[in-house]
Amino acid sequence: MDTSKEKILIIGAGLCGSLLALRLAQRGYQIELREERSDLRKTDISAGKSINLAFSDRGIKALKLAGVVDKVFPLCIPMNGRMIHSIEGETFLSSYSGRPGEYINSVSRGELNALLLDEVEKFENVNIVFNSPCTGIELEQNKATFKVDDTIEGFHANVIFGADGVGSVLRKEFFNQREMLFSYSQDFLAHGYKELTIPALDTGGFRTEKKALHIWPRGKYMLIALPNLDGSFTVTLFLEHSGAKYSFEELNSKEKVVSFFREQFADALELMPNLVDDYFENPVGNLGTIKCRPWVYKGKSLLIGDAAHAVVPFYGQGMNASFEDVYVLDGYIEKYEGDWDKVFTAYENERKKDADAIGDLAVENFYEMRDHVANPDFKKKRQIEMELETSFDYYSKYSLVTFREDISYSEAKKKGNYQDKVLLELIVNSEIEKLDLATIFNKIKHDA
Amino acid sequence: MDTSKEKILIIGAGLCGSLLALRLAQRGYQIELREERSDLRKTDISAGKSINLAFSDRGIKALKLAGVVDKVFPLCIPMNGRMIHSIEGETFLSSYSGRPGEYINSVSRGELNALLLDEVEKFENVNIVFNSPCTGIELEQNKATFKVDDTIEGFHANVIFGADGVGSVLRKEFFNQREMLFSYSQDFLAHGYKELTIPALDTGGFRTEKKALHIWPRGKYMLIALPNLDGSFTVTLFLEHSGAKYSFEELNSKEKVVSFFREQFADALELMPNLVDDYFENPVGNLGTIKCRPWVYKGKSLLIGDAAHAVVPFYGQGMNASFEDVYVLDGYIEKYEGDWDKVFTAYENERKKDADAIGDLAVENFYEMRDHVANPDFKKKRQIEMELETSFDYYSKYSLVTFREDISYSEAKKKGNYQDKVLLELIVNSEIEKLDLATIFNKIKHDA
Repeated sequence: MDTSKEKILIIGAGLCGSLLALRLAQRGYQIELREERSDLRKTDISAGKSINLAFSDRGIKALKLAGVVDKVFPLCIPMNGRMIHSIEGETFLSSYSGRPGEYINSVSRGELNALLLDEVEKFENVNIVFNSPCTGIELEQNKATFKVDDTIEGFHANVIFGADGVGSVLRKEFFNQREMLFSYSQDFLAHGYKELTIPALDTGGFRTEKKALHIWPRGKYMLIALPNLDGSFTVTLFLEHSGAKYSFEELNSKEKVVSFFREQFADALELMPNLVDDYFENPVGNLGTIKCRPWVYKGKSLLIGDAAHAVVPFYGQGMNASFEDVYVLDGYIEKYEGDWDKVFTAYENERKKDADAIGDLAVENFYEMRDHVANPDFKKKRQIEMELETSFDYYSKYSLVTFREDISYSEAKKKGNYQDKVLLELIVNSEIEKLDLATIFNKIKHDA
Repeated sequence: MDTSKEKILIIGAGLCGSLLALRLAQRGYQIELREERSDLRKTDISAGKSINLAFSDRGIKALKLAGVVDKVFPLCIPMNGRMIHSIEGETFLSSYSGRPGEYINSVSRGELNALLLDEVEKFENVNIVFNSPCTGIELEQNKATFKVDDTIEGFHANVIFGADGVGSVLRKEFFNQREMLFSYSQDFLAHGYKELTIPALDTGGFRTEKKALHIWPRGKYMLIALPNLDGSFTVTLFLEHSGAKYSFEELNSKEKVVSFFREQFADALELMPNLVDDYFENPVGNLGTIKCRPWVYKGKSLLIGDAAHAVVPFYGQGMNASFEDVYVLDGYIEKYEGDWDKVFTAYENERKKDADAIGDLAVENFYEMRDHVANPDFKKKRQIEMELETSFDYYSKYSLVTFREDISYSEAKKKGNYQDKVLLELIVNSEIEKLDLATIFNKIKHDA
């Protein structure tokens, strides 16, 4: 079919919207890409909100499809495992996998987004408009209105994609459409987050191990740090909003913040000369999971990425899931091109259960990172899994989710939870010592 | 404390808001009761929407507390069980309990609401305003605005109750308040409902058994009927909205409707001379479950009844749950009067899990009513449970939910599901025949 005749509107030029625009431009569609914020390549708008992300195999698969992955790798810092910092300041590295070559990458959200926009702009069949918030959508007519300067303009498209993130305007239209029977849930953790910094050394070097995701797990609260190319680390503090001895509400003075860090994160405090300024300048973010259904309105519009399934950041999969959305969608466009109704229905049928799965996995991993990574049984389990991954065709739950882009999130969840359950039972019941590795491998194998 | 000094605003004069107003008026508070619709005692506004309801022990407990239950019983028609109608037109009665005196009551929503409003009006410390929709609430200031004729007026209160049902304005304010971390879910069944009628005989008599809740279970669809005092039955058809062989979308002509009823509900069709008119005049309703949290804003406002927890109608507990809300709340007012923050927090802590439980139970019972009531294993189970209830201190799940107002919904759910699981296993594995009743009773006893 002649795709150049079809006008596609994509709302949101973030990571998901940009990759989607790129892929559909490659397929020859006429693309209108609208973004409410200004062009991030011209102004710095990150301002203390998740400025680096973990980029891994599902995301790589999607960027490969769009032919841009080789340009992304130079922006990445490989992280081979979790560097756990105990309260006494001791550290140990817990590898992400027992196999070499299985690692995740720290990448700057802004740089990656800029790269995708640069690629999109190379296509003549794409029109990008920044500073143009969507003010409403008429679902039946496939018409959206946008603010541009002080006027409102309408835009009609054959198909509309809502890639407009957590606060999606398209999702709100679905929500308000009684006839859609729109099932929707939003769930917040009692914890919020705040971004802080470990600055680079004056020489440009890193103040602590570069090739790791650092974690200070403390039960009720947690600090993490991911490396940036410039030698700095972006640090995130996870803490209850209120109602606890230590909470964002309670930590309201310089003295309280410093004393909290001295008590809980002494080794990190030494690396954070700007802690107090960062703490009081940066906002507290919420941690929410959004699930909804349907994602589709009659083959006319589709929710994609965070707009369809916002997840908490604890599996490092938010961006990867959104990129994989584009990959899965592209497969159905290949199959049913010309029939958006079929494309969207098939996409939702496959993808909904996987989006639900990664949403659940991310919440579960919050508790794992916060509580378990420093727990002896958990350490024992990681050690055995590492040996299994080295010697057998075994993948831990983390590896299944992160490195097995050929397996869906929902399968990875099912298989991974089964393995975890059996393995932890063997450890807790002290049976593990009596078994050789091959026996353990056979015991925990999950035959789907 | 001197409660007469405290101004209480209740939004919504439906069943829950009216009972709440009555109880708080009895406690001496200054009550402002606002209702968006007109006074149902002066105009008929039911128009084909759930005009009779099942009134049972939890509701009775709450109306007893308010001292009005004796005025309600004359409005009730006891229903001793489910009268199941097979596709061949055969009927059998499945009692709700093996104990005499355990039955549910069919009552007109309008008449019960009118009675409660009459009782509320007897109090000088209550001001009721009809035709006054709430247009917004400032949570921090505890100020609500209402439309009255063509003007907007503000009302300030010490405490605001949102008893304004599924479309609650207070709940929408909570939803839009980012700082509240408002967790929310709405879930719709693929089925909708439409109300129909079996009219009274010209003599005023009933065309079929009066003292039963009639069910025509057909797997994918279901018809039910509840008796009214005037000899008629209110009939409800549950059917998928669209996408099935028989759906509200498909049944769009007189011929199709009549032929569907002739095929599936032949004995009902004979009793429904106005079927076609009813079908095309009455709207299709949605069946949704709403859960949310928190219900409370800082001891200033509280969601109650359907506004906090809308449930599908399949356990006949929607009204009873809302009445029980008032009962539970009243207990904490008694305990902590003067400290609304404590009252609301304690109330939510106790009640949230029970509201979740009845929401889940109601959805589960949809599948039970639709599919299982005519199934041989299910019939066998009901028969054994009937015998157990006759001879032992045993309560089926249905009885625990419906007749044990001293047990919370969440406990009833846990205990009931355990019993059902064990009993059904004994039946499916054909072990049940080898056991005497006392042994069965001991096997399925759930010690919480």
